[in-house]
Amino acid sequence: MTLDEITISRAIISEQMHIMLEYMDMDVAVVGAGPSGLVCATLIAEKGLKVGLIEKKLSVGGGMWGGGMMFPRIVVQSEAKRLLDRFNIKSSEFSPGYYTASSIESVAKLTASAADAGVQFFNLTYVEDVMIKGDGKLSGLVINWQPVEATGLHVDPLTIRCRITVDATGHDAVVAHHVSKKCGKPKIVGEGTMWADNAEFAVVTHTKEVFPGLFVCGMAANAVSGGHRMGPVFGGMLLSGESAAMQILDLL
Amino acid sequence: MTLDEITISRAIISEQMHIMLEYMDMDVAVVGAGPSGLVCATLIAEKGLKVGLIEKKLSVGGGMWGGGMMFPRIVVQSEAKRLLDRFNIKSSEFSPGYYTASSIESVAKLTASAADAGVQFFNLTYVEDVMIKGDGKLSGLVINWQPVEATGLHVDPLTIRCRITVDATGHDAVVAHHVSKKCGKPKIVGEGTMWADNAEFAVVTHTKEVFPGLFVCGMAANAVSGGHRMGPVFGGMLLSGESAAMQILDLL
Amino acid sequence: MTLDEITISRAIISEQMHIMLEYMDMDVAVVGAGPSGLVCATLIAEKGLKVGLIEKKLSVGGGMWGGGMMFPRIVVQSEAKRLLDRFNIKSSEFSPGYYTASSIESVAKLTASAADAGVQFFNLTYVEDVMIKGDGKLSGLVINWQPVEATGLHVDPLTIRCRITVDATGHDAVVAHHVSKKCGKPKIVGEGTMWADNAEFAVVTHTKEVFPGLFVCGMAANAVSGGHRMGPVFGGMLLSGESAAMQILDLL
Amino acid sequence: MTLDEITISRAIISEQMHIMLEYMDMDVAVVGAGPSGLVCATLIAEKGLKVGLIEKKLSVGGGMWGGGMMFPRIVVQSEAKRLLDRFNIKSSEFSPGYYTASSIESVAKLTASAADAGVQFFNLTYVEDVMIKGDGKLSGLVINWQPVEATGLHVDPLTIRCRITVDATGHDAVVAHHVSKKCGKPKIVGEGTMWADNAEFAVVTHTKEVFPGLFVCGMAANAVSGGHRMGPVFGGMLLSGESAAMQILDLL
Amino acid sequence: MTLDEITISRAIISEQMHIMLEYMDMDVAVVGAGPSGLVCATLIAEKGLKVGLIEKKLSVGGGMWGGGMMFPRIVVQSEAKRLLDRFNIKSSEFSPGYYTASSIESVAKLTASAADAGVQFFNLTYVEDVMIKGDGKLSGLVINWQPVEATGLHVDPLTIRCRITVDATGHDAVVAHHVSKKCGKPKIVGEGTMWADNAEFAVVTHTKEVFPGLFVCGMAANAVSGGHRMGPVFGGMLLSGESAAMQILDLL
Amino acid sequence: MTLDEITISRAIISEQMHIMLEYMDMDVAVVGAGPSGLVCATLIAEKGLKVGLIEKKLSVGGGMWGGGMMFPRIVVQSEAKRLLDRFNIKSSEFSPGYYTASSIESVAKLTASAADAGVQFFNLTYVEDVMIKGDGKLSGLVINWQPVEATGLHVDPLTIRCRITVDATGHDAVVAHHVSKKCGKPKIVGEGTMWADNAEFAVVTHTKEVFPGLFVCGMAANAVSGGHRMGPVFGGMLLSGESAAMQILDLL
Amino acid sequence: MTLDEITISRAIISEQMHIMLEYMDMDVAVVGAGPSGLVCATLIAEKGLKVGLIEKKLSVGGGMWGGGMMFPRIVVQSEAKRLLDRFNIKSSEFSPGYYTASSIESVAKLTASAADAGVQFFNLTYVEDVMIKGDGKLSGLVINWQPVEATGLHVDPLTIRCRITVDATGHDAVVAHHVSKKCGKPKIVGEGTMWADNAEFAVVTHTKEVFPGLFVCGMAANAVSGGHRMGPVFGGMLLSGESAAMQILDLL
Amino acid sequence: MTLDEITISRAIISEQMHIMLEYMDMDVAVVGAGPSGLVCATLIAEKGLKVGLIEKKLSVGGGMWGGGMMFPRIVVQSEAKRLLDRFNIKSSEFSPGYYTASSIESVAKLTASAADAGVQFFNLTYVEDVMIKGDGKLSGLVINWQPVEATGLHVDPLTIRCRITVDATGHDAVVAHHVSKKCGKPKIVGEGTMWADNAEFAVVTHTKEVFPGLFVCGMAANAVSGGHRMGPVFGGMLLSGESAAMQILDLL
Repeated sequence: MTLDEITISRAIISEQMHIMLEYMDMDVAVVGAGPSGLVCATLIAEKGLKVGLIEKKLSVGGGMWGGGMMFPRIVVQSEAKRLLDRFNIKSSEFSPGYYTASSIESVAKLTASAADAGVQFFNLTYVEDVMIKGDGKLSGLVINWQPVEATGLHVDPLTIRCRITVDATGHDAVVAHHVSKKCGKPKIVGEGTMWADNAEFAVVTHTKEVFPGLFVCGMAANAVSGGHRMGPVFGGMLLSGESAAMQILDLL
Repeated sequence: MTLDEITISRAIISEQMHIMLEYMDMDVAVVGAGPSGLVCATLIAEKGLKVGLIEKKLSVGGGMWGGGMMFPRIVVQSEAKRLLDRFNIKSSEFSPGYYTASSIESVAKLTASAADAGVQFFNLTYVEDVMIKGDGKLSGLVINWQPVEATGLHVDPLTIRCRITVDATGHDAVVAHHVSKKCGKPKIVGEGTMWADNAEFAVVTHTKEVFPGLFVCGMAANAVSGGHRMGPVFGGMLLSGESAAMQILDLL
Repeated sequence: MTLDEITISRAIISEQMHIMLEYMDMDVAVVGAGPSGLVCATLIAEKGLKVGLIEKKLSVGGGMWGGGMMFPRIVVQSEAKRLLDRFNIKSSEFSPGYYTASSIESVAKLTASAADAGVQFFNLTYVEDVMIKGDGKLSGLVINWQPVEATGLHVDPLTIRCRITVDATGHDAVVAHHVSKKCGKPKIVGEGTMWADNAEFAVVTHTKEVFPGLFVCGMAANAVSGGHRMGPVFGGMLLSGESAAMQILDLL
Repeated sequence: MTLDEITISRAIISEQMHIMLEYMDMDVAVVGAGPSGLVCATLIAEKGLKVGLIEKKLSVGGGMWGGGMMFPRIVVQSEAKRLLDRFNIKSSEFSPGYYTASSIESVAKLTASAADAGVQFFNLTYVEDVMIKGDGKLSGLVINWQPVEATGLHVDPLTIRCRITVDATGHDAVVAHHVSKKCGKPKIVGEGTMWADNAEFAVVTHTKEVFPGLFVCGMAANAVSGGHRMGPVFGGMLLSGESAAMQILDLL
Repeated sequence: MTLDEITISRAIISEQMHIMLEYMDMDVAVVGAGPSGLVCATLIAEKGLKVGLIEKKLSVGGGMWGGGMMFPRIVVQSEAKRLLDRFNIKSSEFSPGYYTASSIESVAKLTASAADAGVQFFNLTYVEDVMIKGDGKLSGLVINWQPVEATGLHVDPLTIRCRITVDATGHDAVVAHHVSKKCGKPKIVGEGTMWADNAEFAVVTHTKEVFPGLFVCGMAANAVSGGHRMGPVFGGMLLSGESAAMQILDLL
Repeated sequence: MTLDEITISRAIISEQMHIMLEYMDMDVAVVGAGPSGLVCATLIAEKGLKVGLIEKKLSVGGGMWGGGMMFPRIVVQSEAKRLLDRFNIKSSEFSPGYYTASSIESVAKLTASAADAGVQFFNLTYVEDVMIKGDGKLSGLVINWQPVEATGLHVDPLTIRCRITVDATGHDAVVAHHVSKKCGKPKIVGEGTMWADNAEFAVVTHTKEVFPGLFVCGMAANAVSGGHRMGPVFGGMLLSGESAAMQILDLL
Repeated sequence: MTLDEITISRAIISEQMHIMLEYMDMDVAVVGAGPSGLVCATLIAEKGLKVGLIEKKLSVGGGMWGGGMMFPRIVVQSEAKRLLDRFNIKSSEFSPGYYTASSIESVAKLTASAADAGVQFFNLTYVEDVMIKGDGKLSGLVINWQPVEATGLHVDPLTIRCRITVDATGHDAVVAHHVSKKCGKPKIVGEGTMWADNAEFAVVTHTKEVFPGLFVCGMAANAVSGGHRMGPVFGGMLLSGESAAMQILDLL
Repeated sequence: MTLDEITISRAIISEQMHIMLEYMDMDVAVVGAGPSGLVCATLIAEKGLKVGLIEKKLSVGGGMWGGGMMFPRIVVQSEAKRLLDRFNIKSSEFSPGYYTASSIESVAKLTASAADAGVQFFNLTYVEDVMIKGDGKLSGLVINWQPVEATGLHVDPLTIRCRITVDATGHDAVVAHHVSKKCGKPKIVGEGTMWADNAEFAVVTHTKEVFPGLFVCGMAANAVSGGHRMGPVFGGMLLSGESAAMQILDLL
């Protein structure tokens, strides 16, 4: 066949335009496409809800790509081994209860599952503010292109509506900070010192609705509620994403 | 169970150390983890050869994540549709012979397949020179951490050995340029103007051994041999990666 | 009435996406929205042709805003006074044959006329390459978002088709340089020294088709053909834009 | 005619010098040439008052050029439709009560009207401090070239006098912050969350004199008084500029 | 003999990886390889304890290389002259009680002694957080590569365990600040004005355990406890390093 | 008396604008206000000619302020001692024939003399191009504000006319390079190695008219004609400035 | 004569070394070589005291070079006209009581006078801290090269001793801030709004000893004590420098 | 004893100034304080010649600190093992003929030996040009502070004289490039590809006088003469430094 560049351009614009128009109003917006966000989005979308995953970088995967200190391996404890298996990520037991996996395979498999579940990705997209109206509930996000923000251009954002927002943006807890700054709550306690064991436990406990319409999961949960810090051990991340999904599915 | 941070650290270092020691000497080094590099590495590794994929960025996927102008969709023509199917990437027909897919799903599925085939990933790794000895054959790569290069630190590189190198670094054709600069060949013709139809055809033709021990594929093939430029149409990329793999498997 | 943010977002995306889909294929693409580009685009669009004006900056107007050395005034000689009048720009005679005007009013009035004539603006859009196929004619442009280029992100461009392209990008003559680098012609002579009188005359003479499908106008004309440089005297610019429009209308 | 470069230089310096000397003392200084500032300045100048519009950038138009997320369209609600019409800006109804327009045409037409009304523009001009004397009234502005500020050069500013100042600098509310920091008032409440409907209403209510001699309008009004944030819906902006003008005309 | 690049690469990786695995758990971690850190680490390691010296820069030596204002000389008072002699650093008496030495020789000799004592160096290593568990004792450090931090890459750190940590990071007192921020103590008083005589005395007094498991020495001691500032007089630095070593050896 | 800010502003603008209008056309434009430029301008202005000194930096003095390696002293040989005396600069004999002086006093005294001679200073002014018309003679300069150039703003320059131009811009020989690039001559030989003795002699020899209307002096003379490099010995600079002045006075 | 580069180097180093050794201990250190610092240093040195002028930039003159908004003119009111005359600076009366002068001539003449009075200049020298001992009196300054600070190099400073320090560093009041931060006083009130008339009066009133051993003059006086801001009117500056000198001469 | 800051400052300035005055004229200037430069300087100074080691960075050691890819180990082959022993650097045999050592210990021990041999270090010193007079021999270096160069300040350099210069600046071969650019020779062939075995041999062969008065050693030797590249194997470096020293000692 003969390829026509203009048809290619039109195919790309047309497809994405329809997705953007459709996803201006969605059930759940997950912000941050690291491991907990990917797990959370996948599990909700698998139940048929309309889920968008908003990521400021060009690539998804968050802090997982680099493993620990650029050695691209991650560790998962026994409690979360079943989630590695569920997402078809190969692992091997290093010492009893400690499973290692390739950090790059892990990102790829979690992302592939999200795509299969019907999650729509909005990468290079930056949350610059939140929409909260008279009912005091987080009901939407104010978004812009990340390159616009990076170049300091003065360009107005657009607004999307969502019934539930999940802040999975890690240490920065970006959405929670926007809400806290404008509304005076939730109180941001801040992340504690490194204590992997405690952190892994806490991150699941801290995964909850911290403001009407806003859930936190992954390191954002600890960053908001004062949980300890963990390192390149991703079991708690996966479990936290799962926990957020379960709570939200109960709600919707 | 109780998690011990030190065991986690040791698990990560120990695992990656063994992989690094093992992959100092490999069958095929693919440089650049964009779509053509991923396809090429996967198809060779599936045949049981020892393949390393060297990527300077933290994430793999190259220019595929952003689709066309940040609209995360790609287009594939009918000739390459079977490769989308082979890698389990969902697509829909936009107009006769033009298939669209999610750019993010595409990266994830190609990467997942590479991991399943046994490809080892070395991300954040930068090729700063080449090893060519008295036999005039490219027999190894001089690598360093990309953050070392980005910060201008004066730190020496290490050298790895490989029987075959694939330059899949896109427009820059990094390895071919290193070889050309030091040895006077291959001649770098440079990429032509945009002409998607012609480019898609040419990229497969230009996928070949351009110097003893060095293959080029994907846009690097056109950048070396003067093929035309294409846009966010990735069929030629996938076919080029497949072609490089076939030629190399014939050789080894 | 009650305003709904989501309707606002959808209105903006929907309108612009339809324009983008429509303008993937246009009669004339004018690159660079300085004074000569604005005049050229306006005069062609007034005849009912489909004209797009592509500008890499957020704002149009080019080098006109700052007048001379940040004193926001421009000068126009008597020959071009009728064009100030045509675009409804107020001017006063400083000395015989020298008319001054506000640089800011000039930009605003030229832009307003272009909009009234039906010109479509594509700002923040960067021409990164050209489309030239087997017939050796410039038949399209490879475009991307300027913030993508400014942040060095690896994102693929899209391609648009146009029957005629006008390079009105000033000293840089961006499109002409892309064509010259890939095809070996047109020969770029380079701009001469300051000589306002001669330059004003030359810029109109040099306004012509320099490659099949490519016209140059404004300072780009002098930069390609070796005309002299002028200063904040914009008569030649306006006349050059007019001349390009006349020639193109004759052709189409 | 023969053009003389030196006459051109003298024409530009001489004209602008006389304007600068004249406008060292003006009736109303509007700071910020976005949509609300342009409307406000125009309506006051149309009544014959001496109005200067001070803008730190090279181009006027503020955040309007980029529309929403670089899609150059704006939306205006039915209440403000009459202002689009008044400024001759073409619009179409997207859904009942929502009118869309070209963001670029909008800037051009508002600016053209300001020029026709006799507003003098001082672009590339930065307000670095305020003049407040013993009567506790804002009676002047301390200005400098923006490129001086951007390059960190140590160059002293000049001072201009004005009976009334309008802060139309958007989210930053630059003048109000200078006054607040030096005098302890007005209290800056800070902008609220996105709530377009409420914001559009509030911005007009918050348009008022917040310190003797200082009015705020546009987003600066909400930023000072705690109004909600809006997006690329510019009706409130236009209405706010109109309101400021009405109040000031009553006063002078 | 014939040199094989791959054996060289393997030798380097293998040796350092085994050291890293071994030093994930050490007796004493000294952070900051300036003069006080080098003395402290040497004296402890000479007693047979496992000591790691963690330095964020590529080179060790801290602020000593530059002497005073880039004149590479240091001064040591008579009380510390014996330490210069102990480390084999040549000095000459400038005036009674004031000994000068080469700053570069001083760094080299202190470092050579540390290496001879068995101290292991971890350069280009950055302490980004601390490990404190339920017993409220500083029991480990969260480390990463400095180039990762400098380039802003999102890569997870690793954790090491140590019985005692010494903060010898100078004015910044990096470890003490991490502990103070997360645990509310120790209180950081901050460094006083220049008063060399008093500072030299104080720095030894302030060298102590400021938090369970954390000692401070050198300028970090004054920065935490409010001691005065000194200049390029290094006697107090050396004595402080010695004092920290004595106290820690008593404890272990 | 009571001070009025607006009168102050008007005084400054009015005075300088009149000087600018007057100096758009001058006898001699000296570009670069280092020692040779200052001497040259002074000696010509003392004869009653209209001389402007154009300097891109905020301060005049060029490379003289820093003496040698930031030790603010200069050396002058016996042949040039009379020029130190003429400009009232104190000096002392270090060894026979070598006189030292304060670099800062030297700048101040040369500048004071220039002011007394009636030289007009245009600082922060950048020469971005040259005016050469049909007679092939350098007859003017294209100037802009240096902060405009430093910030990359797109603002047009203005043009000034001068009978003679002196390039005293040091190693860069800015004006000579502009002329050479546009006209193919003068040939720029480039500066030789350090050889103070020879350089001091050569710089006077090389001080001459290198293109119709263009003289070079100071290091620019050596940079154009291949003279050797000198160090912080300023005798040749002063003598070269004197020589240029003599030649130009002969001519005018 | 024949010039020897090495003699030149030795002359410069030797001369400056002796000055540096001598000025490690001086009567009065004036920090900041703007107009008030220059006047103050000159008047004290004329009485035979040992005065050093410490300036962080390469050139002296502070904010005076640029006049107002890059128009290199200053204004002085009638009360300070006698100081212009004393320093031999030409001026002309713009309107009754307002005298204008060249900003560049003003810097040159003030600096020349300082040199003639015997002031020693230390340019490129940065005050990074203060020396205050047990008697609670500012008795010295901790200095470093400015390029060391600008490049972030870790190089120790040196200390100089002075009986009296004058902070003439303008808006930043650098020395006063160091003292205030370390000792809790003087209280820094901060500069008020622009009010030239009041400021000119206040700056002389606020010129005083604000901490044992520390005087403030020029804008630093207003910045410490809450005086109003002035613009490019330098009469108050000169009067303040004179006042500081008078008070210090009374004291010593 | 009581410490006096001023005595400390004077001690440092006085000592270093005398060294600088003495070393303005030396026997051998070694440029670049990496391993080959350190060995070369040490071996010459041990014979009683006056040797200065000029290093642009704050620390000496060059590329040795970082080992290979930030793993701080180096490898030395059997031929150079005796040099490790001579400089008292501990090593262990990894495999037959391959010895590993700590990169940090290596730098420290080489530097300590240089200091003991009487080498004078000039760190933060940058060679910006060369002195070559009528005899066509490299007879001196034009030096400046590195921070002056890094901040782009316009400050003149000083010149030092030396009978022999050694370029040990690694890949950049800084001195050889300055000489080549100004004199047309030596011809710079450029470094070849990685081939450790060949490179180690070649580097010693290429260590020679390449221009009257100029020797190259270490990687600079290969960079000038076209030798191959090596990695973190430092045997050739040490042998090359030794060879340069032997040749120079024969000459002097």
